[in-house]
Amino acid sequence: MEKFQRNERIAILIKMLSDSPCKIFTLGDFTEMFGSAKSTISEDIDIIQNLVAKFDLGMIKTISGASGGVTYIPSVSREKTVGILESLCGELSRKERILPGGFLYMLDIIYDPQKVSDIGRIFAGRFYSKNVDYIVTMETRGIPLAFITAKYLNVPLIIVRHSNEATDGASVNTSYVSGSSKKIQTMVLSLKALRRNSRLLFIDDFMKGGGTAKGIIELAREFGCEVVGIGVLIETAQPAKKLVDNYFSLLVLNGVDEDKGIIDIKPGSCLV
Amino acid sequence: MEKFQRNERIAILIKMLSDSPCKIFTLGDFTEMFGSAKSTISEDIDIIQNLVAKFDLGMIKTISGASGGVTYIPSVSREKTVGILESLCGELSRKERILPGGFLYMLDIIYDPQKVSDIGRIFAGRFYSKNVDYIVTMETRGIPLAFITAKYLNVPLIIVRHSNEATDGASVNTSYVSGSSKKIQTMVLSLKALRRNSRLLFIDDFMKGGGTAKGIIELAREFGCEVVGIGVLIETAQPAKKLVDNYFSLLVLNGVDEDKGIIDIKPGSCLV
Repeated sequence: MEKFQRNERIAILIKMLSDSPCKIFTLGDFTEMFGSAKSTISEDIDIIQNLVAKFDLGMIKTISGASGGVTYIPSVSREKTVGILESLCGELSRKERILPGGFLYMLDIIYDPQKVSDIGRIFAGRFYSKNVDYIVTMETRGIPLAFITAKYLNVPLIIVRHSNEATDGASVNTSYVSGSSKKIQTMVLSLKALRRNSRLLFIDDFMKGGGTAKGIIELAREFGCEVVGIGVLIETAQPAKKLVDNYFSLLVLNGVDEDKGIIDIKPGSCLV
Repeated sequence: MEKFQRNERIAILIKMLSDSPCKIFTLGDFTEMFGSAKSTISEDIDIIQNLVAKFDLGMIKTISGASGGVTYIPSVSREKTVGILESLCGELSRKERILPGGFLYMLDIIYDPQKVSDIGRIFAGRFYSKNVDYIVTMETRGIPLAFITAKYLNVPLIIVRHSNEATDGASVNTSYVSGSSKKIQTMVLSLKALRRNSRLLFIDDFMKGGGTAKGIIELAREFGCEVVGIGVLIETAQPAKKLVDNYFSLLVLNGVDEDKGIIDIKPGSCLV
């Protein structure tokens, strides 16, 4: 068998680990691939662990025991989180974003792969210890963010829709009341989508009253599942009392002054 | 300045390159970071280039000239593509997937981060030379696939919707006729979404008649943009004549026999 040098093994190891975040690799996977002893691979992993920490590129975690191994968590340091959020606030405060009605144009941000990936890493770092089985979101604008979070946590994505389609098969339909507009809306999820007793993480781009999040919690209950975390990119400061508790928001939108062209947005509860 | 060993530099280089696919890094970016000479970094890049090729993990491309540098393209070899597509066909052929009306349940596949990433790499490898400016998709089911393709090609994603929302600002609305059902539907895209004269790649999960793809081409024209590529995960064998030409499909669904419980699906034009 071909022998590999340390720099070759380390390069391939770091690439494989970071291409499959939160997947647990056993040392055996690697000893076989490189024809190296376990002790050699362990030393390689130690080097990678230090490097990833030194360059603030996430976290390499070793898990001991029979089902043990090594995994890469694409988390973000507090310092880097502050930088990402301040940069987002800077972009979101540009007055050209103000739309009629005091809405904020932000599609260019929530559909941008690099920005969405940065935000997804913050969510992954926050929620990886919750052992979630699925990421769930409500169509449409939160899907990229929910998808990348699912990729970083190595779990499937579930998309709840507003109406059902033949290609979804039999579905559960529930009604929910939007927290801000008080309109009654429908949520639809395919019966095949979730295993019972699963732990769900709800990810969305925006939370005002919290009606969607509350609706998702109730929908999950119909499937015998539990929402164990809620992460949103932006929450509005008003109403201060949301329909759900225990959510994690990255930014708080304090207000939009259409006349003066001022958008007041700040990093949120995530830095507390 | 701290000196880094070759194995440390190589590990960080491969991680940075593969975390930002299709981004062009200059050698200067790296000489500064590591305090190393250009010739040293060049040797590192050579080693990485060989390794990535040897382990079939994509492609490292060096670009010469003033705006030159090095970039990582997450393409997939033909051999690996065959393996991915055969595995998808195996999963999609399971008779439990057949829904009333002969539809196929496939949400578990098109929302699965690992499978979607594999498919996105095939699209990235196929289309990176087209110099696209945006990935475009129609909500909802193709969004994860379109998003990961956007991430791998380092361009923004654009999501066309069925109806407009206040948060999109002023929008262009067009009508299109579904190729299979002949129903007239609406496409909506925010006026701010696209720069004129851009090159678009349309990505979707499924193509039957090609009506959606044709609608996107016409919508793009309203923005002064051009669709330079179309990639779909599955096309149906019938109708054989689609409303668009020059599309790239990974799988062909020949038919679903509800009574016998047989799904006939094969790798498509991509392997020709």
